[in-house]
Amino acid sequence: MTTSREVHLVARPEGLPTEEDFQILETEVGDPAEGEVLIQNLYMSVDPAMRPRLTAGYELNQAMSGSAIGRVVESRAEEFAPGDVVSNRHGFKEFFVSGARGLRKLETIQGLPLTVHMHALGGTGFTAYGGILHIAQVKAEDKVFVSTAAGAVGSVAAQIAKLKGCWVVGSTGSDEKARWLAEEAGLDAVVNYKETPIRKGLGEVATAGIDVYFDNVGGDHLDAALACMNERGRVAVCGMISGYNEPGARTTVRNLANIIYGRITIRGFTVADFADLHAEFLRNMTDWLLRGEIRYQETILEGIENAPRALIGLFQGLNAGKMLVQLGE
Amino acid sequence: MTTSREVHLVARPEGLPTEEDFQILETEVGDPAEGEVLIQNLYMSVDPAMRPRLTAGYELNQAMSGSAIGRVVESRAEEFAPGDVVSNRHGFKEFFVSGARGLRKLETIQGLPLTVHMHALGGTGFTAYGGILHIAQVKAEDKVFVSTAAGAVGSVAAQIAKLKGCWVVGSTGSDEKARWLAEEAGLDAVVNYKETPIRKGLGEVATAGIDVYFDNVGGDHLDAALACMNERGRVAVCGMISGYNEPGARTTVRNLANIIYGRITIRGFTVADFADLHAEFLRNMTDWLLRGEIRYQETILEGIENAPRALIGLFQGLNAGKMLVQLGE
Repeated sequence: MTTSREVHLVARPEGLPTEEDFQILETEVGDPAEGEVLIQNLYMSVDPAMRPRLTAGYELNQAMSGSAIGRVVESRAEEFAPGDVVSNRHGFKEFFVSGARGLRKLETIQGLPLTVHMHALGGTGFTAYGGILHIAQVKAEDKVFVSTAAGAVGSVAAQIAKLKGCWVVGSTGSDEKARWLAEEAGLDAVVNYKETPIRKGLGEVATAGIDVYFDNVGGDHLDAALACMNERGRVAVCGMISGYNEPGARTTVRNLANIIYGRITIRGFTVADFADLHAEFLRNMTDWLLRGEIRYQETILEGIENAPRALIGLFQGLNAGKMLVQLGE
Repeated sequence: MTTSREVHLVARPEGLPTEEDFQILETEVGDPAEGEVLIQNLYMSVDPAMRPRLTAGYELNQAMSGSAIGRVVESRAEEFAPGDVVSNRHGFKEFFVSGARGLRKLETIQGLPLTVHMHALGGTGFTAYGGILHIAQVKAEDKVFVSTAAGAVGSVAAQIAKLKGCWVVGSTGSDEKARWLAEEAGLDAVVNYKETPIRKGLGEVATAGIDVYFDNVGGDHLDAALACMNERGRVAVCGMISGYNEPGARTTVRNLANIIYGRITIRGFTVADFADLHAEFLRNMTDWLLRGEIRYQETILEGIENAPRALIGLFQGLNAGKMLVQLGE
């Protein structure tokens, strides 16, 4: 038996979640049966899309789930040996026992930390890759606007657009993040929406309009983008974080009529829309990371007791880049 | 010289236009020069898309414009002879002189009134045709929702969807229109949104969800559709009449975040997106009309002095089907 801690959702938040909505419980994890492995999680992810699941999706008084990277401690499954590092969906737990299903062995890549599998080479990176290339179909010379551009998805989407020869403007919520976007990620323009209302800020810099908007925010950001969109513009909607803490995850948009004469397409997507691109994504992204053409930031909190704070912090802009929680070493 | 009356916009309305925003003026129309024709308009169109142009687009104290059908009175252009019937963009005028550009000769079709060129065989019919077939790409078995389904565009879009084997629900604002939709146009379900809020009414009848929404309304109708959309649903946005009388032609939408997990596409369009389909449209629509497979309604007011009232009436639901003004015989 192994002692493990896990995070339960104990109350459904209205508005911004608080630490009281979560509880850390200690449990005993049994030994693996034939075909199973015991895994210690090393890192877990928190991401904005978890917010709607707090309202409906996650069970109350059950361990939450999410993506994680762990190390095999004990194996009774042929496919795995102790020491193997695997990605899994058992975040919010320190240890767990699992069959082989849902575990994917990760190869360590010389020159890159393990944690890149949690962002640039993981779900957020793939979301950005497929969203900007497959859904938004950016091409050289496009004027591209990416919201929450310093976030895990936005920063990758914005940099891929740069690599493809686009002019790219990003929005973010602090001067420090704005500096990173301009100096490290190489964006052409950055709007700090906490200093300048996004509608005004975007209008001032996007003097040639916007052909593509990669939306992580909805609400005022989407309205600002629609006010600037060129004819036949495309909006790829990855998330609408502005509404996630509203009842029913609602975000209010008022400029939608602009899409008629602009002949604009707005498309919601998830990675399921381009699952066939995954191998190509891994190849390209690994190259870009190794060559330093895609840069990233990580914010890592230590210990499962900080998982609720990490999740809440996403909505307060506490993270630079990908927000992770380290659960083991 | 010919005496003609024309409609000027004399004030920019805020909200619903009133008759005081317009003025009927008498002018003298000169004789056609070499290459020109003198035309008497017989019918002119009013349509919802004219509303945003009242705010910005139409010049103040100038004759308004819009689509019309007229008869050549005098011709000094090779292409036209007196008696020819031509479509033109000189609505809101009884008589006008024009070069050949922008005039299109109309053939009378045995068995169909001339006025079908103003709706089912004209711009509204083509908008519906391309919108439902090319933009929304309806296919058999799709569950289709059409708003303002008794209107000039909606009624054609809904009936084409029926012809393609779809299940079709329409929304409209009176019991009389609802009856026409069910009994004449053959829709599977109709919601009178003035009796039942559209969100509730649509939810009750669309028990298998909605795959395609043909939007003429925006606002609450779009929200209702998004609440019912099946995965990979498509929204073809033709108009957003709900916002046309708001400042900046804005319509408020709150369910937009549904498009993410639903992987829904929302696409604004105008006829410019499928101009290449026009010949095919004319062939198919003529057949459908002659066989009675596409039915239509017309509301015709008499005399140019009623043109402002006709335009205002569109936003009050006064029209059944296409709203026209007869300017001559």
